[in-house]
Amino acid sequence: MRVLGVDPGLTRCGLAIVEASPGSRGELIYVEVASTDSKLDPSDRLFEIAQRITWVLDNFSPQAVSLERLFAQQNLRTVMGVAQVSGVVMLSARERNIPVSTYTPTAVKSSVTGSGRSDKKQVSKMVKELLNLEEIPKPADAADAIALALCHAWRVPNQKVSSDPFRQRKVPKVKRT
Amino acid sequence: MRVLGVDPGLTRCGLAIVEASPGSRGELIYVEVASTDSKLDPSDRLFEIAQRITWVLDNFSPQAVSLERLFAQQNLRTVMGVAQVSGVVMLSARERNIPVSTYTPTAVKSSVTGSGRSDKKQVSKMVKELLNLEEIPKPADAADAIALALCHAWRVPNQKVSSDPFRQRKVPKVKRT
Repeated sequence: MRVLGVDPGLTRCGLAIVEASPGSRGELIYVEVASTDSKLDPSDRLFEIAQRITWVLDNFSPQAVSLERLFAQQNLRTVMGVAQVSGVVMLSARERNIPVSTYTPTAVKSSVTGSGRSDKKQVSKMVKELLNLEEIPKPADAADAIALALCHAWRVPNQKVSSDPFRQRKVPKVKRT
Repeated sequence: MRVLGVDPGLTRCGLAIVEASPGSRGELIYVEVASTDSKLDPSDRLFEIAQRITWVLDNFSPQAVSLERLFAQQNLRTVMGVAQVSGVVMLSARERNIPVSTYTPTAVKSSVTGSGRSDKKQVSKMVKELLNLEEIPKPADAADAIALALCHAWRVPNQKVSSDPFRQRKVPKVKRT
């Protein structure tokens, strides 16, 4: 299945399209790190990030979106930006009838490296090996987005989304309201 | 000027259109509290709230959006939902070239009642008096959204947004990308 992995953020937002399924290593179709200038107005930053998200959704038609789940350790200012981008990701996917799943960083690390305690370096290295890439994806947000996509593609048989066959099929785009 | 005040939230989102200017009391044009079922998928909830927001923006063409600014006292789960809705509000407004300003609850209370320490009851009561309403707007999210709109309409000459004449004029809708 084709999955869009999103490592959300206002300063850097990792977006990766991966084609993979349980038992297969997977193929990296596309990756980018959308970034915005912190001096810009927050609504301008969100608008720029949203444009990249919708471009990727419309150009690669993923069947699922895998999004990093927020957790309490981050400071409020960071959480705010991340949550705002997450909201935009969830809405953009929903407008296209694409199901969104969220995963904690621990679940993603565990899925890719076998241990939830791995550091960013180990995740990046494993992503490179698993997808047979020539280089380690940089910045880390790119590797994180790829890892998120892999985490979902491999786990999907156990996810709620797979129990609904309609959501697994490629569904027509809905008119944005 | 016509302002949309938004008290953001996934469970209840207050949306109020107020026509007011510095020195005038103002007129309430429209108010609603959009609500979603907490049992629904977060992306479905965001989608429902986004539909209400875009409906209000497109039907009442406000010149500015006044949004509650998040602060640290809230718990992370609440902050997440509020930030996600805030992101959707900011993006929807930006897509229509409508400037967004954010205000802390203290600034809003201070603007409407004269004291940043007022409680919700005092704000609701003052909103009723200022706008010459027959009843106190309920639930509190409705009164909060109205207070946010008033806060911006009265303060606008001192705000950054007013220094840009283009943003003050009613601008044509942009095509959503």
